[in-house]
Amino acid sequence: MSLERGISRHAEGSCLVRFGATEVLCMASLEDRVPNWLRGQGRGWVTAEYGMLPRATHERMRREASSGKQGGRTLEIQRLIGRGLRAVVDLEALGERQITVDCDVLSADGGTRTAAITGAWVALRDCLSWMERRSMIGPNVMKDHVAAVSCGIHDGTAVLDLDYAEDSQAGTDANFVITGSGALCEVQATAEGATFSEEELLELLKLARHGVRKLVDLQKMAIG
Amino acid sequence: MSLERGISRHAEGSCLVRFGATEVLCMASLEDRVPNWLRGQGRGWVTAEYGMLPRATHERMRREASSGKQGGRTLEIQRLIGRGLRAVVDLEALGERQITVDCDVLSADGGTRTAAITGAWVALRDCLSWMERRSMIGPNVMKDHVAAVSCGIHDGTAVLDLDYAEDSQAGTDANFVITGSGALCEVQATAEGATFSEEELLELLKLARHGVRKLVDLQKMAIG
Amino acid sequence: MSLERGISRHAEGSCLVRFGATEVLCMASLEDRVPNWLRGQGRGWVTAEYGMLPRATHERMRREASSGKQGGRTLEIQRLIGRGLRAVVDLEALGERQITVDCDVLSADGGTRTAAITGAWVALRDCLSWMERRSMIGPNVMKDHVAAVSCGIHDGTAVLDLDYAEDSQAGTDANFVITGSGALCEVQATAEGATFSEEELLELLKLARHGVRKLVDLQKMAIG
Amino acid sequence: MSLERGISRHAEGSCLVRFGATEVLCMASLEDRVPNWLRGQGRGWVTAEYGMLPRATHERMRREASSGKQGGRTLEIQRLIGRGLRAVVDLEALGERQITVDCDVLSADGGTRTAAITGAWVALRDCLSWMERRSMIGPNVMKDHVAAVSCGIHDGTAVLDLDYAEDSQAGTDANFVITGSGALCEVQATAEGATFSEEELLELLKLARHGVRKLVDLQKMAIG
Amino acid sequence: MSLERGISRHAEGSCLVRFGATEVLCMASLEDRVPNWLRGQGRGWVTAEYGMLPRATHERMRREASSGKQGGRTLEIQRLIGRGLRAVVDLEALGERQITVDCDVLSADGGTRTAAITGAWVALRDCLSWMERRSMIGPNVMKDHVAAVSCGIHDGTAVLDLDYAEDSQAGTDANFVITGSGALCEVQATAEGATFSEEELLELLKLARHGVRKLVDLQKMAIG
Amino acid sequence: MSLERGISRHAEGSCLVRFGATEVLCMASLEDRVPNWLRGQGRGWVTAEYGMLPRATHERMRREASSGKQGGRTLEIQRLIGRGLRAVVDLEALGERQITVDCDVLSADGGTRTAAITGAWVALRDCLSWMERRSMIGPNVMKDHVAAVSCGIHDGTAVLDLDYAEDSQAGTDANFVITGSGALCEVQATAEGATFSEEELLELLKLARHGVRKLVDLQKMAIG
Repeated sequence: MSLERGISRHAEGSCLVRFGATEVLCMASLEDRVPNWLRGQGRGWVTAEYGMLPRATHERMRREASSGKQGGRTLEIQRLIGRGLRAVVDLEALGERQITVDCDVLSADGGTRTAAITGAWVALRDCLSWMERRSMIGPNVMKDHVAAVSCGIHDGTAVLDLDYAEDSQAGTDANFVITGSGALCEVQATAEGATFSEEELLELLKLARHGVRKLVDLQKMAIG
Repeated sequence: MSLERGISRHAEGSCLVRFGATEVLCMASLEDRVPNWLRGQGRGWVTAEYGMLPRATHERMRREASSGKQGGRTLEIQRLIGRGLRAVVDLEALGERQITVDCDVLSADGGTRTAAITGAWVALRDCLSWMERRSMIGPNVMKDHVAAVSCGIHDGTAVLDLDYAEDSQAGTDANFVITGSGALCEVQATAEGATFSEEELLELLKLARHGVRKLVDLQKMAIG
Repeated sequence: MSLERGISRHAEGSCLVRFGATEVLCMASLEDRVPNWLRGQGRGWVTAEYGMLPRATHERMRREASSGKQGGRTLEIQRLIGRGLRAVVDLEALGERQITVDCDVLSADGGTRTAAITGAWVALRDCLSWMERRSMIGPNVMKDHVAAVSCGIHDGTAVLDLDYAEDSQAGTDANFVITGSGALCEVQATAEGATFSEEELLELLKLARHGVRKLVDLQKMAIG
Repeated sequence: MSLERGISRHAEGSCLVRFGATEVLCMASLEDRVPNWLRGQGRGWVTAEYGMLPRATHERMRREASSGKQGGRTLEIQRLIGRGLRAVVDLEALGERQITVDCDVLSADGGTRTAAITGAWVALRDCLSWMERRSMIGPNVMKDHVAAVSCGIHDGTAVLDLDYAEDSQAGTDANFVITGSGALCEVQATAEGATFSEEELLELLKLARHGVRKLVDLQKMAIG
Repeated sequence: MSLERGISRHAEGSCLVRFGATEVLCMASLEDRVPNWLRGQGRGWVTAEYGMLPRATHERMRREASSGKQGGRTLEIQRLIGRGLRAVVDLEALGERQITVDCDVLSADGGTRTAAITGAWVALRDCLSWMERRSMIGPNVMKDHVAAVSCGIHDGTAVLDLDYAEDSQAGTDANFVITGSGALCEVQATAEGATFSEEELLELLKLARHGVRKLVDLQKMAIG
Repeated sequence: MSLERGISRHAEGSCLVRFGATEVLCMASLEDRVPNWLRGQGRGWVTAEYGMLPRATHERMRREASSGKQGGRTLEIQRLIGRGLRAVVDLEALGERQITVDCDVLSADGGTRTAAITGAWVALRDCLSWMERRSMIGPNVMKDHVAAVSCGIHDGTAVLDLDYAEDSQAGTDANFVITGSGALCEVQATAEGATFSEEELLELLKLARHGVRKLVDLQKMAIG
């Protein structure tokens, strides 16, 4: 597990995340505009886009640019990342600007959304530091860490960081987005063709907290 | 709150759901084919599609058919409904057939996904009864009830069935899909620009269980 | 045959039309803008959009939002409705505003365009009344009633209000849009793989006039 | 007014129509397949596609291939042409084959749909002759001539062959598709922001019959 | 080989090119705007769009407007034409205006891009003359002639103006865009499943210069 | 300048190319099918797809998957890469299979197409070795090396490997695809708003040969 910063020549902040064989490239881009519906309110916006290279996966998938639209899974993940980041950014203090964090999966072996949000935070943080150094914003626009883990129930027990093979067999699949101080941003637990109990949900959450703590430590070391 | 069955002349199962000013029309369509990736395995499939009439909302929205693509929210909701229904259907016993449940929002006043999945279950159940009467399937293909509620945290307290105005101000918004026997199918709790605690999550879940029990009672009365 | 007004919580005018098993929901939305080509001329615009729920028909059709474009039939019908409505509205007196009437078919059993335009008039009229009550416009912006009928030649004789089964076998299929005072807005008579004579056209028109008179009476009762 | 045959090196039948400054190139293409819904029934199909070069009109229009979809007007016209041609072709005798007639407007100065259908008949007829010479079909697959005229009501009087300037001011605009023996295939009379009377409709039809007779004479001379 | 000018009633400049059985209609349209990225710089822009009628070719191709996007070959050719034209136009002297030259292939028998650029120059030149006559620009905005030839290596020897049959068998296919004074604008030599030598490239270029000289003579005669 | 092989866990062949700040990830995917038009002929196919991460460039570009189509430049480059690779592969000996080489630009600083084709050759070669080791093909399916260079004329002199800043100012921009034995696959020399002479073309070619020799040496070392 590694987070490598500053790997993009152009982006204001960037991070290459490696979790086992999963690799995600996160790049934060600052733009001097906000979405139309936010204009004139003096507040900023943080958003994310997600993509996968066609052969990031075991079988080559069709390129979304060539099929002409982003799939439902892509849209779901990029909304998740965006919300997680906005939970820890002071959008008022950002001013009327937009930061887009692109998360592109170079290699997928389970846990791509976990890796993406963990690295997206680092890229976003470095983008904000870049702005701070230029006196565009004050300190503390980034209010906290945020990271995510995927976990699931495998053969009846909660398992953290499912690898790809386990992932596809798991009846229950969960994503937790949690801040550095332990507050919850997002809880998604989904059963495909199965169900789960409240106890199992809490056990997954406990595992997730443990995982997020390790990821936040990793972020701290990375920005050291 | 009402569930009106058999409102479609054509669909094998149908239900008009009214939750306050929210109205969703659910229609289940049986087709003698399955998605390509399921072919030849002797198993069936249940899926859902979701849409909103342009003026179901306070301000008229652009028609998705005219803008040329379904938005991220639409895709997210229809995946949620499909997974919830599949959790309570015996897909092996269904045989190599597909049932698509269309959920179209005629009027929206908060809670459209809750209403949609509650009614979709009724439409699907009536479609299965229709098949049973024709000896296409045996009994018990439908294994349990399933319903959903939206709730959220408003001014620091958990609130069930937020109406539209509260919904948009709530920092935390949650969806729970729960079976008749209390098993969880889906837990989605999301904070926009905010966070929530584990206690709040459990309080929301408690509220949701209460709400789902009432919805399942409603379903029982409707099919009674 | 019934016209139920005020069925939408949000729309400025609305009407649910039921003609036998055909059901169309019409909602008029007022917007404070006009198409670009009309800007700055002080005149308003009335337009219509048409859609069908996927299982409004006997066989489920693909959802237009998911296939990514509106079919030729959809575009043809919504242009017809828009022209019919504009024929009876004083666009100068409307001022620089646009009213869009959405006509969505909940259930189709023949005659959906007839039902749509009949109900669209009621929805539009109620939208104009809503504006009048707020002193946004004066009276008489709505200059006349307008309604439409479909008819056709079945086994050599002109038949009004073909039900779906007859419709598909009819060699000649006609649509007439006629005002309350009997003026013609639109005449469309089409033969698929067949032809028709002038006498047949006139017989169809006679039938249509009779049908429109009944529909206009229905409108008058509905708004009475 | 002229019809020039055989102007395409590749198409089985072709015709360049010139009506004043309006020029339409019609090319009929034979294909050894039918649409899916017709397969295995031993019957053929005739269809049409319509397009306009971007600068066929006074102001350059956006190229439909570049905007990514065909407009409503384009779809409406190509359906009209297809139905008109099918009215005079014996689809059983054609066998399981499809003929597509492409009508592309090189220059538009009013009456493009009239010109298109008149020339499309000639292109289609030459395609059938080509097939007959190769003994693919017998004689009489083409059962009759078919032509179309546009006319309208200008300053209160019915006028044939409106030129472009008059066309845009006319309150009522009509299209008639009529066979060589005088049977009607299609009657479309449309008022934009106006209405018309039955007498006016009949006067337009009379004019149209006169115009179609001249066009059919032109077709006869062209193929003579 | 012929270049016929002034064949469009509407376009500011136009030319119908006939090279054997290849026919391309070129129309130049003046617009009083420039692309966004050029705004406010006082310079103009010249661009081109390219299309083919569906049955311009031996087998009917699908209409790009109906398939919803322009193919890669179309985009490649229209960029080539645009660059070629811009090489000989003084964009500063044109002022903040855009000229779009539409090149539409009516019949294809090899060499369509050659024909297109040769005719596009004539259409553009006539558009500039039209502007000069109205004192919108001074003289000499058009700095030189420009024309293009396709050639290739067939059975080991360089061949100019390959007809369609040879073209498809040729291992090496080249396009040269050259000005009237012999300067090169574009050299594209491409081998499909083969390679070529520097000597062959130079031989092709020699042939191309010869061909372009003849085309420029043709342009001179046409505008003479 | 470096070529790193085997960087993908999934792809049959892969290579990460670094040319200064330009980074391109090339992955070759073997599929057991060929395009429809090639079916049943016993021959294989090699093709390429090209993409850029949104922030690979100085300014963030819109994601092609989200804008819904691939731009003209993207299509042009991927066709160039595909042709270059096919020039050095024995498609007969490949058998009825397709290899797609995805070239995704992680960071762009000029010369992305040069980098892409150089690395694509390595990825393709490793994919063929993978097949050879499994006895799917014999040796010598890869007939030669192939590489590409971009060069241009800057302030009147030919310059190899223009960095991004120079590139955008260069009047003439050229791409050469050349095999290991010095045969030419593709020559593209383009002037934007300028022209070039035959001498300049030959000087560019000389530079390109020199550059390709170095790239081929790099390939040899990488696979050595």
